[in-house]
Amino acid sequence: MTETAAVKAALKTQAVETPSWAYGNSGTRFKVFAQAGVPRDPFEKLDDAAKVHEFTGVAPTVALHIPWDRVEDYTALGKHAEERGVKIGAINSNTFQDDAYRLGSVCHPDAAVRRKAVDHLLECVDIMDATGSKDLKLWFADGTNYPGQDDIRSRQDRLAEALAEVYERLGDDQRMLLEYKLFEPAFYTTDVPDWGTAYAHCLKLGEKAQVVVDTGHHAPGTNIEFIVATLLREGKLGGFDFNSRFYADDDLMVGAADPFQLFRIMYEVVRGGGFTPDVAFMLDQCHNIEAKIPAIIRSVMNVQEATAKALLVDGEALAAAQAAGDVLEANAVVMDAYNTDVRPLLREVREEMGIDPEPLKAYRASGWGERIVAERVGGRQAGWGA
Amino acid sequence: MTETAAVKAALKTQAVETPSWAYGNSGTRFKVFAQAGVPRDPFEKLDDAAKVHEFTGVAPTVALHIPWDRVEDYTALGKHAEERGVKIGAINSNTFQDDAYRLGSVCHPDAAVRRKAVDHLLECVDIMDATGSKDLKLWFADGTNYPGQDDIRSRQDRLAEALAEVYERLGDDQRMLLEYKLFEPAFYTTDVPDWGTAYAHCLKLGEKAQVVVDTGHHAPGTNIEFIVATLLREGKLGGFDFNSRFYADDDLMVGAADPFQLFRIMYEVVRGGGFTPDVAFMLDQCHNIEAKIPAIIRSVMNVQEATAKALLVDGEALAAAQAAGDVLEANAVVMDAYNTDVRPLLREVREEMGIDPEPLKAYRASGWGERIVAERVGGRQAGWGA
Amino acid sequence: MTETAAVKAALKTQAVETPSWAYGNSGTRFKVFAQAGVPRDPFEKLDDAAKVHEFTGVAPTVALHIPWDRVEDYTALGKHAEERGVKIGAINSNTFQDDAYRLGSVCHPDAAVRRKAVDHLLECVDIMDATGSKDLKLWFADGTNYPGQDDIRSRQDRLAEALAEVYERLGDDQRMLLEYKLFEPAFYTTDVPDWGTAYAHCLKLGEKAQVVVDTGHHAPGTNIEFIVATLLREGKLGGFDFNSRFYADDDLMVGAADPFQLFRIMYEVVRGGGFTPDVAFMLDQCHNIEAKIPAIIRSVMNVQEATAKALLVDGEALAAAQAAGDVLEANAVVMDAYNTDVRPLLREVREEMGIDPEPLKAYRASGWGERIVAERVGGRQAGWGA
Amino acid sequence: MTETAAVKAALKTQAVETPSWAYGNSGTRFKVFAQAGVPRDPFEKLDDAAKVHEFTGVAPTVALHIPWDRVEDYTALGKHAEERGVKIGAINSNTFQDDAYRLGSVCHPDAAVRRKAVDHLLECVDIMDATGSKDLKLWFADGTNYPGQDDIRSRQDRLAEALAEVYERLGDDQRMLLEYKLFEPAFYTTDVPDWGTAYAHCLKLGEKAQVVVDTGHHAPGTNIEFIVATLLREGKLGGFDFNSRFYADDDLMVGAADPFQLFRIMYEVVRGGGFTPDVAFMLDQCHNIEAKIPAIIRSVMNVQEATAKALLVDGEALAAAQAAGDVLEANAVVMDAYNTDVRPLLREVREEMGIDPEPLKAYRASGWGERIVAERVGGRQAGWGA
Repeated sequence: MTETAAVKAALKTQAVETPSWAYGNSGTRFKVFAQAGVPRDPFEKLDDAAKVHEFTGVAPTVALHIPWDRVEDYTALGKHAEERGVKIGAINSNTFQDDAYRLGSVCHPDAAVRRKAVDHLLECVDIMDATGSKDLKLWFADGTNYPGQDDIRSRQDRLAEALAEVYERLGDDQRMLLEYKLFEPAFYTTDVPDWGTAYAHCLKLGEKAQVVVDTGHHAPGTNIEFIVATLLREGKLGGFDFNSRFYADDDLMVGAADPFQLFRIMYEVVRGGGFTPDVAFMLDQCHNIEAKIPAIIRSVMNVQEATAKALLVDGEALAAAQAAGDVLEANAVVMDAYNTDVRPLLREVREEMGIDPEPLKAYRASGWGERIVAERVGGRQAGWGA
Repeated sequence: MTETAAVKAALKTQAVETPSWAYGNSGTRFKVFAQAGVPRDPFEKLDDAAKVHEFTGVAPTVALHIPWDRVEDYTALGKHAEERGVKIGAINSNTFQDDAYRLGSVCHPDAAVRRKAVDHLLECVDIMDATGSKDLKLWFADGTNYPGQDDIRSRQDRLAEALAEVYERLGDDQRMLLEYKLFEPAFYTTDVPDWGTAYAHCLKLGEKAQVVVDTGHHAPGTNIEFIVATLLREGKLGGFDFNSRFYADDDLMVGAADPFQLFRIMYEVVRGGGFTPDVAFMLDQCHNIEAKIPAIIRSVMNVQEATAKALLVDGEALAAAQAAGDVLEANAVVMDAYNTDVRPLLREVREEMGIDPEPLKAYRASGWGERIVAERVGGRQAGWGA
Repeated sequence: MTETAAVKAALKTQAVETPSWAYGNSGTRFKVFAQAGVPRDPFEKLDDAAKVHEFTGVAPTVALHIPWDRVEDYTALGKHAEERGVKIGAINSNTFQDDAYRLGSVCHPDAAVRRKAVDHLLECVDIMDATGSKDLKLWFADGTNYPGQDDIRSRQDRLAEALAEVYERLGDDQRMLLEYKLFEPAFYTTDVPDWGTAYAHCLKLGEKAQVVVDTGHHAPGTNIEFIVATLLREGKLGGFDFNSRFYADDDLMVGAADPFQLFRIMYEVVRGGGFTPDVAFMLDQCHNIEAKIPAIIRSVMNVQEATAKALLVDGEALAAAQAAGDVLEANAVVMDAYNTDVRPLLREVREEMGIDPEPLKAYRASGWGERIVAERVGGRQAGWGA
Repeated sequence: MTETAAVKAALKTQAVETPSWAYGNSGTRFKVFAQAGVPRDPFEKLDDAAKVHEFTGVAPTVALHIPWDRVEDYTALGKHAEERGVKIGAINSNTFQDDAYRLGSVCHPDAAVRRKAVDHLLECVDIMDATGSKDLKLWFADGTNYPGQDDIRSRQDRLAEALAEVYERLGDDQRMLLEYKLFEPAFYTTDVPDWGTAYAHCLKLGEKAQVVVDTGHHAPGTNIEFIVATLLREGKLGGFDFNSRFYADDDLMVGAADPFQLFRIMYEVVRGGGFTPDVAFMLDQCHNIEAKIPAIIRSVMNVQEATAKALLVDGEALAAAQAAGDVLEANAVVMDAYNTDVRPLLREVREEMGIDPEPLKAYRASGWGERIVAERVGGRQAGWGA
């Protein structure tokens, strides 16, 4: 009973950040299927994000992506958000869409291109100052496609130099979250391909540099929860970009492809003391073929369900079975939590939070989806601009 | 001596088909980097392809992609090609870029969408009639992103029905080449994910239906040369889409990522009697960051080098070692051929064919690259239109 | 209500075959950790298997492996089984442990070795006649480790010839189940590496030859449920070897690594009409570090839970959402079933079957585990003999 | 000319350490095929290793594995080696074959088991003192098979504690080389699964702790040369365990599966200043089906050929093309070196070193293979004892 109360209390404190770009159009290299009602500017993205928070109660912040969300007046943008009950979260940089970045950005062989890229990163920190964002999230598309194309080690040197300059610019309350990714869009080397590389750079930069784990950025077979446990043990887990994948960086709804993996990850978060505001829980998904706002609501709910199950693991029984070397019993303790249907519990949590116990139904009943289709006519739909 | 002559003779008969779309712009979902001098229409693509044939001597045909290469008058297009020394090759269908195809084409749950897709395929056969193309190459982006999204089996039924209708429309000398692909752009199921599925459909369709192997469309660890050997043994290998990859469908230059694999594939082609006009050797690549025409020339040369090495395998010595169960010797026979530097041999072949022994140097000296940059100004560069 | 009754009725008819070898010792190439109480002969294996059936109610048959389970008198062995409430199931051949098989068995370059291997397979059919087994399960370790080691295509010819001879020997009620596996113990080519190869051979052999899907035998990223759906559509799914894996052929308890995948597989079984006695549901696992009998009970329960969830999918709602192209709703219907805690339902099923609702607790309370440790002293523990 | 001389000079300094266990029997979990003539004790292994050095000229040291190579008198063993022209190299620990290690060794939940494991590691350092070995190579089979089985983070704490104790025991000239491996024999978590984990531990331990890269221990798609470049940049590359693989840890002859990858690795070694005695170049292979000594000779030659090609890369031309952003030219410079047939160069190197230019032919002509088959009769063949 008391335990259930504790689980509920924890779930009420959960915060999942949604990404502005997930509300816009996205696709594959083969096709971007436009959807009716998609936002035309950052303000409309925040409107949609506010709906996700309204109906889930646990999505209070919205990540921006620069330049996709560049506006004249970030104060006005922040005010727009707050009026709708949300805040601006992490600032995501983009050093992959300018023609200059064909061979890289901060790792480019040409110092002028690197300068341009670093300047963009510094601009992102300026925007953080304006928006009150705490986190600068860095994902670099840098890499090479062919053996020999560029010097692997020199690119690391350039990367280190760029990161150091940006790190120096960070304010006292600001962090740099460095993301790694195995491949895509680079197909031979990627300059930050794995957690080890991100970790090594963050270690040298200092306390304000931390690693962010995108759950879709690993080689097949990689044990992501091990990385989570390790980074927490090292004090270097800055946050997550949640999504799910069957193959590569598919960017499907988190929990859709392997809900058991998501549960294991959340278990290690809880186990390692990572269920705190110091670890940012962000979504980074592409809703290429499904309705976007409901997909994001569903994703938030999937994170909640995995978290609830993780919180329900009987720690004492588990520790006892582990200490006894009872493989089957230890596994059973974990599976008992996973096999629990936590949806009733989450319905209670929502009712206690004063929101509808069925976020998707409530969203659909709200008429928001129809309204944006009707109202957002004309203008240019938001997208990646790829 | 006589053996070298035979190898040379075989190499002179080689034909590698280049794809019209490789001359245009391509990219990833993150960015398409436009290149100066890229063709603006199918005629200019053929101009570029003719250059590849001029300097390699073994790229006599060009695959078209409909609608990217749709023109008013295919006879004029064919004449344009022939005047430049090349011919139109396979017709590639596209059922993935119309808004109607968000949930699939020939496998779509809605019969109207399937009708539209099949009509497009039939149109492709009409174009084949006009161009004299022998091969209809079918790659379907069909699939699903989420478990439950659609019924796997019903989609197979729909696929079979569509293929049957198109098969019926084929002329006596025309073939249907069915391509398979593990994933992308669909991320949960793909309706033709592997050679087994393509084979099963082709088997039911009949002799004019054959499987095409794209070397970048397999799961990690798949032994592609085994598939080649098996399909040849079954009489069902229709051709190749050559490219190379380190991770997924990276579409890099063939031979760039794993030249030993390409050699092993070509060895099985030779071994299985597949080095004939009945097997189509096509490139399907994306030169996202490198110069396109030189990259295609290089790719053709890579195929030639792998073929030359495959032809150099000492069959008698190999058979003897295999029969004796001498693992190391059998492997050594194969490695001896692979480790041979066949570039001098190919230089001789080219000289005997009356072309420059160094295709890339000759191309660069020709000034074509500079000329197209200067002349192809204005208009709209060809690309995927994604 | 009626629907729940139907689900329960279906679950009561379920039959999961357990493998005799899972009761014996197993390990990796690094170490076999022996466990106390492990059977010393096939009779004791059947004793253990009978316990699994006693406590689960759905494990009525036991697969044998020849020569590991070779006995003088198979009639006596069968009688021993039936006295304990179980029957002998599939006969599994072994053509990988004789010194003669270093370079293969039915695909070996030496006809004498092939003869030896085929004779063993024929002996297995003899044993089937004696035991009343209906299924001959064939897994071949055949393959090569090095490019060139042997001729891929000739090996296929030899395989086809061997299979044909064995097929001819089958009785009217007997089947040949051909298993495929990507790799291990062969590391370059495997002679039956994928479902396509197994399917192609079975197709030529005839109706009594069917494909068996071992859930651990695929390349990373392979969509197994797609294969299941396809084989059922082709009438060629003979059965399963269930186990789970995070990496390769790990042979962990089924449902332990990816319970959602197991559910998706069982859903396709149900959807495709495969939940019948014509499809054999077998376990093939290695309990290297955990207690064996409880692990097998747990595995049977995992299959039951996945099956229960699959049976609970609301087919009408799913079909409607799929027809409407409602991606999120279709996925939600499937996830609703998956997220259901079916353990209460299965407890009811067991009670209605007259067994303890908690098989593992009941087994532990039975004292069998302690008894075999005490009694099975001396002799030689069963294992793979590798 | 001078450049060729420099390449030759470098090649003459090369040293590839061969592993004692590769001379003994090995296999898979399915079968160990014994070979005639295999050594029966560590002395005979050294005899074979001396032959490899005699015929290649670049295999002067032999790694030992404890307890497989445990002897009464290590001084006698060392003298035996030196009399035959070789020396004892790295000491490899074994904490995976004692029954106590079922659930791990240095990471085991039971302190008594950890004590036993650490004592073994300390014993290995004692042996290093006796043999004059400089490197302690640590590979841990530790891990778990099932989610929940043990606590990931606690296991890291135990690992760190064990490593620290052993590190303290090292002499001034001794190093600890920590190996990582994705999976096998553990199938859910491995306690040192990737270079990042090994690096993080080594960083804390100090300068004498370095990472060893086994080329078969990565997830599919991992770019190994990137790891090599990164570890060299960090000053933490201790050495290699060379072998090759198509799938998992196949332990085939190095260079057999992907010779281009081996070349790329050796290029990064050369580029990063790693072609020095501070980086240990060791083989770690299993010759399950092929003749062992010739396979090892072949492996040493494969390393030589990859090294020769790496040394032949035209650094100036490469740097110029990279600086110019000329993707194709930079790649061409690397491929030119790779496509070179370096076997004539290596024959010259060998002749200049006073050995036969054809090591395999010379070995075969020596009669050693026949002699050991004839003489090594009786006794117990060396193997893993799994």
